[in-house]
Amino acid sequence: MVRLNEIRENEVAIAAPDAMDAEIVFIGRISTPWTSRMETPRQGRPDGPVCTIEIFEPWVPALTGVERYERLEVLYWLHQSRRDLVLQSPASNGEVHGTFSLRSPVRPNPIGTSIVLLEKIEGNRLFVRGLDCLDGTPLIDLKPDRTLFKPIAPRQKGDDETGEVHMCKKVD
Amino acid sequence: MVRLNEIRENEVAIAAPDAMDAEIVFIGRISTPWTSRMETPRQGRPDGPVCTIEIFEPWVPALTGVERYERLEVLYWLHQSRRDLVLQSPASNGEVHGTFSLRSPVRPNPIGTSIVLLEKIEGNRLFVRGLDCLDGTPLIDLKPDRTLFKPIAPRQKGDDETGEVHMCKKVD
Repeated sequence: MVRLNEIRENEVAIAAPDAMDAEIVFIGRISTPWTSRMETPRQGRPDGPVCTIEIFEPWVPALTGVERYERLEVLYWLHQSRRDLVLQSPASNGEVHGTFSLRSPVRPNPIGTSIVLLEKIEGNRLFVRGLDCLDGTPLIDLKPDRTLFKPIAPRQKGDDETGEVHMCKKVD
Repeated sequence: MVRLNEIRENEVAIAAPDAMDAEIVFIGRISTPWTSRMETPRQGRPDGPVCTIEIFEPWVPALTGVERYERLEVLYWLHQSRRDLVLQSPASNGEVHGTFSLRSPVRPNPIGTSIVLLEKIEGNRLFVRGLDCLDGTPLIDLKPDRTLFKPIAPRQKGDDETGEVHMCKKVD
């Protein structure tokens, strides 16, 4: 079964453009129990193993106040992923799905996002549950879970703008 | 009141390292009603105005199957944001918060994430609600809302791994 970087039946790779529109900086490093993509969970779970997120200088002071949030949104760089597939076959069975209809690590910009439970913070290290990435994954960003965060900035016009709702589907 | 790129009372800027660890490619463009950061909502709302997301080639085939998802996670590049603040004062009142305890657009890697409601897809354009970004914001990624997506790949070891839960805080 094809599981790493090979192309599977019916998958479609494109000639990916050079990725030069913007640059990112790795602001930390994630430690997890998983050293192979063949073992890494496909999605994190809130009762998963405790993993650590190390924040690099000069960003450590940006952790101020993070301890107030029980859940954080974590963005990380899926550094082993190819970036050129538009149709993928996760089950390796010839059936393909568009990359944007999957949460596969293989994407034009291989950025993973997880919601993690914050256990504790010690200095520049956070202990969290809910990750699904390889040991050594570079960290890109950390922010409060959107459902826990209330904007502190003064209200402005767009905050209260709504649109016609006749096309709106039901939200669960 | 200071609202754009100026430093406010007690805010702390660091000498940001050159952002050269990885490169991203803009895969589309977001159109919204907001042309000034002074009007843009601080958080999207599910009953907000319908906005459009245009996907660029060669990524359009990656939309296959996206229509099955009522909610999508959208990642975008907050192209007007400075990247060097570690402590910020969103209320401009001298009280500062660590960048990682805020969902401010000002971050080492200025990537915004929203959960949007998908109204419809026409060709390479998606019509969605719930965005909070400026007109013309570059798109980075699009994936199914994590709560709606079930992995298609075969189960693997990490999927079933749990950790000790004695430190675990309650999940809502």
